[in-house]
Amino acid sequence: MTKARVLIENVQPQVEGGLYPAKRTVQERIDMSAHIFTDGHDHIRAEVLYKEPDDKDWRRLALKSIGNDVWSVSFYPVKKGRYVFKVLAWIDHFETWYDGFKKKANASVDVSVELLEGALFLKRLSTGKDELAKLASQLGKKPNYAANIELVLSEHFEEMVQLHPLRENETESAEYAIEVEHNKALYSTWYELFPRSASLTGKHGTFKDVIKLLPRISSMGFDVLYMPPVHPIGKVNRKGKNNNVRSEAGEPGSPWAIGSDEGGHKAVHPALGTLSDYKSLIVEAKKMGIDVAFDLAFQCAPDHPYVKEHPEWFKQRPDGSIQYAENPPKKYQDIYPFDFECEEWKALWEELKSVVLFWIEQGLKIFRVDNPHTKPIPFWQWCIAEVNKQHPDIIFLSEAFTRPKVMASLAKVGFTQSYTYFTWRISRQEIMEYMNELVNSPSRNYFRPNFWPTTPDILPYHLHNQGENMFIIRLALAATLSASYGIYGAAYELLDNTSWNGREEFNDSEKYEVKKYDWKKTNRMTDIMTLLNKARKSHAALQNTWNIQFLAIENPNLLAFLKATDDLRSVVLVVVNLDQYNKQSGYVQLPTEKLKLEATINVKLHELIMDEHYTWTQEWNYIELDPAKIPFHLFALRIDESQM
Amino acid sequence: MTKARVLIENVQPQVEGGLYPAKRTVQERIDMSAHIFTDGHDHIRAEVLYKEPDDKDWRRLALKSIGNDVWSVSFYPVKKGRYVFKVLAWIDHFETWYDGFKKKANASVDVSVELLEGALFLKRLSTGKDELAKLASQLGKKPNYAANIELVLSEHFEEMVQLHPLRENETESAEYAIEVEHNKALYSTWYELFPRSASLTGKHGTFKDVIKLLPRISSMGFDVLYMPPVHPIGKVNRKGKNNNVRSEAGEPGSPWAIGSDEGGHKAVHPALGTLSDYKSLIVEAKKMGIDVAFDLAFQCAPDHPYVKEHPEWFKQRPDGSIQYAENPPKKYQDIYPFDFECEEWKALWEELKSVVLFWIEQGLKIFRVDNPHTKPIPFWQWCIAEVNKQHPDIIFLSEAFTRPKVMASLAKVGFTQSYTYFTWRISRQEIMEYMNELVNSPSRNYFRPNFWPTTPDILPYHLHNQGENMFIIRLALAATLSASYGIYGAAYELLDNTSWNGREEFNDSEKYEVKKYDWKKTNRMTDIMTLLNKARKSHAALQNTWNIQFLAIENPNLLAFLKATDDLRSVVLVVVNLDQYNKQSGYVQLPTEKLKLEATINVKLHELIMDEHYTWTQEWNYIELDPAKIPFHLFALRIDESQM
Repeated sequence: MTKARVLIENVQPQVEGGLYPAKRTVQERIDMSAHIFTDGHDHIRAEVLYKEPDDKDWRRLALKSIGNDVWSVSFYPVKKGRYVFKVLAWIDHFETWYDGFKKKANASVDVSVELLEGALFLKRLSTGKDELAKLASQLGKKPNYAANIELVLSEHFEEMVQLHPLRENETESAEYAIEVEHNKALYSTWYELFPRSASLTGKHGTFKDVIKLLPRISSMGFDVLYMPPVHPIGKVNRKGKNNNVRSEAGEPGSPWAIGSDEGGHKAVHPALGTLSDYKSLIVEAKKMGIDVAFDLAFQCAPDHPYVKEHPEWFKQRPDGSIQYAENPPKKYQDIYPFDFECEEWKALWEELKSVVLFWIEQGLKIFRVDNPHTKPIPFWQWCIAEVNKQHPDIIFLSEAFTRPKVMASLAKVGFTQSYTYFTWRISRQEIMEYMNELVNSPSRNYFRPNFWPTTPDILPYHLHNQGENMFIIRLALAATLSASYGIYGAAYELLDNTSWNGREEFNDSEKYEVKKYDWKKTNRMTDIMTLLNKARKSHAALQNTWNIQFLAIENPNLLAFLKATDDLRSVVLVVVNLDQYNKQSGYVQLPTEKLKLEATINVKLHELIMDEHYTWTQEWNYIELDPAKIPFHLFALRIDESQM
Repeated sequence: MTKARVLIENVQPQVEGGLYPAKRTVQERIDMSAHIFTDGHDHIRAEVLYKEPDDKDWRRLALKSIGNDVWSVSFYPVKKGRYVFKVLAWIDHFETWYDGFKKKANASVDVSVELLEGALFLKRLSTGKDELAKLASQLGKKPNYAANIELVLSEHFEEMVQLHPLRENETESAEYAIEVEHNKALYSTWYELFPRSASLTGKHGTFKDVIKLLPRISSMGFDVLYMPPVHPIGKVNRKGKNNNVRSEAGEPGSPWAIGSDEGGHKAVHPALGTLSDYKSLIVEAKKMGIDVAFDLAFQCAPDHPYVKEHPEWFKQRPDGSIQYAENPPKKYQDIYPFDFECEEWKALWEELKSVVLFWIEQGLKIFRVDNPHTKPIPFWQWCIAEVNKQHPDIIFLSEAFTRPKVMASLAKVGFTQSYTYFTWRISRQEIMEYMNELVNSPSRNYFRPNFWPTTPDILPYHLHNQGENMFIIRLALAATLSASYGIYGAAYELLDNTSWNGREEFNDSEKYEVKKYDWKKTNRMTDIMTLLNKARKSHAALQNTWNIQFLAIENPNLLAFLKATDDLRSVVLVVVNLDQYNKQSGYVQLPTEKLKLEATINVKLHELIMDEHYTWTQEWNYIELDPAKIPFHLFALRIDESQM
């Protein structure tokens, strides 16, 4: 039995009813909202109460009604860490009275009793000899009828009403949390390379060779360098070229078959160098603004030291052997999965956590997690939370190329970023639907996409035997649709389009062999990567995934979208010709409302790839994209200030 | 830190995350479902655990995977009252092993170790000397390799696996509630009349006059008789004809201005008869299968006894007067609203509850609640729950013609049925969208619609000055789209289409005067009502709102839909010509999958209004509706049994 008459429902942002925190980054807008309503027509007032990470007391933000009983307020968090918030609402009888008074006075209805009521409200709100008490005594004087009406209708009185909410019978929502992370959680530019292919000579590459490549990677504008596992590689059941179940002598094996007599998850492969070399690489990269990303692959080769030292962490079979990975009837005898449910599970989980902490101690801040969907989701929830307690700025990228609900769940329980289905979204319709899902579905509150056109595991069908244009189109889409994207470097630069037996895998995959690349070479692809990354750095609109607006364009082969910062200081417009072979043209519509354009339009465009300049003076503007020249446009827009 | 690897999300049905119970009626299907998933490819098993109202122990139902990690099971509740349920899921390593075994054996992979593993699982599951122990010992015998494979691949073994789940590390969802009510909560047919207009002579009608009308109402097929408030009507500030603020001597006033020196909310109007007469009416109606519905209007005329006896329940103004209802600058000085937030609110709320209980004691089971959205929602939540504790079968119909979220909220907190926006949904598109919202949005779990083409308060614009066809169209839609519908009787039968000053109100509204009707007359409209209600009674498909499927039809002026029971024993097909003036024709598509029709179609149709018979042998069938004859078809379908 409560007489609090206001109901609060559907508080946003929230994830699974508050089971998990929503995610944002510093200075990223948070739209807080709720359904707030009551019986009748009395006036509601509502506030968000929130605490920044170190606050003891609640801060307050007024919510505004935006129609259909939805109330909202936007807010830019300034600190990293866990924000908590709740919504408070009540019926303000003073404001209700004030609104009724205005309507009656304006309709020349007698309001003498209303003036006395106003005086009573003011007395209740007054804390002694204040402005409110003065106003109350004024309104209580009957002879001043006309003057008192004028007083209540004055701006000063309105201000008093706004400043002095009458709080009674407040309704309070549950509390919700928002995890605010550093900017790199949202905006990051990844370059992937196999350190063993880093040498210029064709010999097995080393960390020192990678250090030599840093200026190249940095000048191309990448800020994350991701390398597959750097651990000793198993020698037992080692895989050969093209995933052959038997390797020839001298074949290097897959870096994901981790562990040998040379060490396990806390060791580095001697062929790559020493731990000290690896740490030098981390330090040198950091100097150039590059974070090294570590590949966390929680699985063992049969000769991993854990297998001997901790057989209790693996599934024992009745014949005394250890269970290898399988997808019946297929066997993967080079890999022993951990048994996360074993008797000694707590010790195992602690050990795996210690692996993460060990590498953080070596200077790493970014982890790309290999196949997290084959390890228990509650393990990740626990492990990431434990790590975050000690190190708040760690990024975990989930390589969960799996079913939608599992992919989503890993993001909910703590992964910072995730690989996505972008890799397989090709058509205009598919791309628009997928972006709409990422940006406008509930997953927007927890799932941060990282777009990869290819990975060493995936050469998607639409790139098989395709030419440079298709690679450029996919690169441009990844780099402009998503604030985070990544490139499987050398293979992409060299347009490696050769599949293995028509499958979505590379022929002669680098996963099983050392590649020799001419790292001194640049080409059209590296030039375009460089220009795209430069544009991403200098245009804040491209550092956000949530600000996309697709534009009407009169040609189904063209995809057009706009990205803008809230203050419109950074606005970019992207048009991609999805037809890699033919010239396509059409008229694209400027979103005049969004850009606050007036009748006379005067928009200056700078095409950032071809370095060309245009002026648009119409709402609809002609675009022509000839793939023989370039299959996409990336415009930076400057809007005549008089128009804003 | 938990090693339970299965996650359970989005358990359905639920309302606001379990804050309110979902609603169903006895024998109405409940589709229970949840998102259930885990890492990797191990096999999940999942169950719904539920309790019927008097159960101490959980009953179990196996959930089945239906794709995309959604699991579901359907269920028909048999008892009235509060069901509770939760979802339980776990990884079944025995079933995972069994599935892997089959794949390996079928691929002729060596499975000797797998047989030993199977023996170990069987031993774990065995409770002693049982079938499982026997099988375990069998599989443990190495020489029987081929025979053991055959054994595991046998149907008997499969049955054993299904019968013996291996439960470990179970994940359990939260508990949710479903309120299961009697059938009338879903399916009811309402007739509204003003008892004061029930006399055949033109004099002020009485309860005894209403008793005389019962055979007519019953023969027309209605099972609820709803009368506006039957209390003494206020004499102070009484409203006159057409809502005139001053009444002439002898005018009867509005029944919603409740209370005078003749009594208040627990009294009946002397002009209508005695309480005993009213109780006789209730009894006589019940004999004919009709429930009398009581109008619960919690507001007072200025001369209501409460005003003198309990001035503390009303808002006192500084000049000593009591606050009348207002919508500034408009004043409604004939109505004093209760102050639900007054100091003595608990006493007030208890008194209002006692009003409901008083009338239940007189034999009433159905309450139509007047403007519930102008009283606190938490009041209704408390009051309905309190009443339900003592009387589980009470129906509360919410007259909340208000904003969507308030209308929805009243349904969530306990109202059994609600008036709806159907009254203003006219076009084919509007009707389809609205039905889709009712049937497929989350509100389906708590909001039961009751469709009214008109009420004494509302003559919608589309009926102003319209002819019989438009009234027939709206009647047919209401009676066939929704399991519950109601007719403002005499005015509808007589096609009262005259608005007051062009507003959505009746001219010379019965709300303010006594009407004289010739209750002996029947006409085409009463004939059609009778046939529609007869069809509703004899065709179970029409007693459900949730089973609607709109059909493709090649004419935008025609609306076609099918309703069917799950067992297809009752199937009706409705086609309405929304164009009241012109003949419209087109081909309608039978939903062959839904009706399980095979290549040779042979469907017998009985048109229930015109009593005509047809046979359809094609998927697409010609329909012609001439409003000069009748603007809709209501077919009962009989499908040749050989086809099902």
